Amino acid sequence: MKTPYFVGLDVGGTTMKAGIVDDQGQPLASVTLPTEAHRGQEFGLERMCEAIRQAIASAGLNLKQISAIGVATPGTMDIPAGLILDPPNLKPWRNVPVRDHIHKVFKLPTAFQNDANAAAFGEFWAGAGRDVNSLVLFTLGTGVGCGIIIGDLVVQGQHSHGAEVGHMKIEISNPRQCGCGRWGCLEAYASATSVVNRANEALSPKGVKSKLRAYQNKEGGLTSRDIFDVAAEGDKLAEKIVEDTAFYLAVGATNMMHTIDPDMIVFGGGMMAAGDAFLERIRKHVKELAFPVPAEKTIICYAQLGNDAGFIGAAACGRQIFSRRN
Amino acid sequence: MKTPYFVGLDVGGTTMKAGIVDDQGQPLASVTLPTEAHRGQEFGLERMCEAIRQAIASAGLNLKQISAIGVATPGTMDIPAGLILDPPNLKPWRNVPVRDHIHKVFKLPTAFQNDANAAAFGEFWAGAGRDVNSLVLFTLGTGVGCGIIIGDLVVQGQHSHGAEVGHMKIEISNPRQCGCGRWGCLEAYASATSVVNRANEALSPKGVKSKLRAYQNKEGGLTSRDIFDVAAEGDKLAEKIVEDTAFYLAVGATNMMHTIDPDMIVFGGGMMAAGDAFLERIRKHVKELAFPVPAEKTIICYAQLGNDAGFIGAAACGRQIFSRRN
Repeated sequence: MKTPYFVGLDVGGTTMKAGIVDDQGQPLASVTLPTEAHRGQEFGLERMCEAIRQAIASAGLNLKQISAIGVATPGTMDIPAGLILDPPNLKPWRNVPVRDHIHKVFKLPTAFQNDANAAAFGEFWAGAGRDVNSLVLFTLGTGVGCGIIIGDLVVQGQHSHGAEVGHMKIEISNPRQCGCGRWGCLEAYASATSVVNRANEALSPKGVKSKLRAYQNKEGGLTSRDIFDVAAEGDKLAEKIVEDTAFYLAVGATNMMHTIDPDMIVFGGGMMAAGDAFLERIRKHVKELAFPVPAEKTIICYAQLGNDAGFIGAAACGRQIFSRRN
Repeated sequence: MKTPYFVGLDVGGTTMKAGIVDDQGQPLASVTLPTEAHRGQEFGLERMCEAIRQAIASAGLNLKQISAIGVATPGTMDIPAGLILDPPNLKPWRNVPVRDHIHKVFKLPTAFQNDANAAAFGEFWAGAGRDVNSLVLFTLGTGVGCGIIIGDLVVQGQHSHGAEVGHMKIEISNPRQCGCGRWGCLEAYASATSVVNRANEALSPKGVKSKLRAYQNKEGGLTSRDIFDVAAEGDKLAEKIVEDTAFYLAVGATNMMHTIDPDMIVFGGGMMAAGDAFLERIRKHVKELAFPVPAEKTIICYAQLGNDAGFIGAAACGRQIFSRRN
């Protein structure tokens, strides 16, 4: 039997990345193209096909050697229908039949999945979670992305809203407003954006002293990276922001331990630059927040695949539907 | 092929209920015996066997007509090992090998599951959820029990702590203490116990007027049932307690919509006596708290099996392992 290869395509607001992955989840080659969503969805669909073709070529393969394709995109979406609906990061796309189009062009089994779910499946298959039975991935960036994997089940939900854990409410009496417009969401506390917002708030009283003041006036303003760096230098205000962030993430992790109770909670995204000391802070809070057994046994670690997780996980989705048929 | 029958046994702190269930989830007969946990775990195991024997006899069957047994117990437990560990409701039991004992006595495939998970599986198989693909059940009583079913998967977790959603944190800045000793858990807001506690707090300032005052001095004190009854009569204070409870339950439901995104959220337990008006209040809050698609599409309803859900779901667990082998 020939070795099966899979194509994974991870479509983002700015770029899309397509890669070839072998049956063990190892990437052979990948290409990145600009998404240019503003050029419209017809262009977008053709760009996706182009990325897939270039990835196959750059791996030195031809289409006949590919067993299946997986495509991951940001929401909103209808996963079973293979449709992108009205994604805020891909304007002006609307009701784009991604899966059917890709299937028609390449005539291969084609899977479709949410990008955060795909990233979790990638880490599960070939990254941090390769030796566990279940995991929850939090991806910390502008927002808080999440994916949940239990065995070979990607928890995509009945209405394509599974694992929208960034929008789980963790505060009801005095909630922060979230980017989604609602109140008290985890994302309003634990995203990189929230780290910056909370630092700016803490700096707003005039008497407050912190090295962070110097960063507020630089081009682009304060970043979460600045805050973690300055905290590491011992700045009290920055230190407090980092500690609070670890607490909020521990609340998110605990809520998943008391819902999914996975083998492993994985943190990915830009905040990983904060290093092991940050992870240790999260673990310390989890020990106080969670029941003793999951608090002790759940592995809490960083992601390993970086921004390859999306296309590797998309390929894993393609492989999953291929396996069901073979 | 003969019709398979299954025994389900639901062990509680006060009583245990064993029943015979057919292949469609319909109960044929059931018996209830006192648990008498204080008499020790050897006695408890023999009482379980007795309940199973009596249930079989009362259905007019014999052991040869039974295909599998399922046993559900309260936590703490190690589900894969078939062990009750150190359950607060079954003192002084400790490290009780329930599954192996039942298996040895009856020589039948025997499943073991958490009681709240079993109740959810019962509602899924033969109750409110019989026509859906996934559900989350909240059982409202002294605590907030929860079970999560996705397809044929009972989300029991990697460390037997799946669906402990009563201990999901919904408040971090000014949290109530939970019966578990931790802070800000859903159960501290939405259990029947919390309904009473919040009413007593609201009544503590002397000037506050409410019909509920009359109930505080009755034998056993105020109950959640009193509060719902008096609210229905238009008492403002009681009305506020009920409205807050609906909000807290809507937060719990929303957090599950943004994690599991099930077809259906089911509420069971004593609070069902509050009727459809209470469910309507929960639905109204969900519309404001959740994303539009799950808010619109997720069915929110009451449980249908009452306290038969546990043994029917336990039987479903037995049937599940029987099916895997046949």
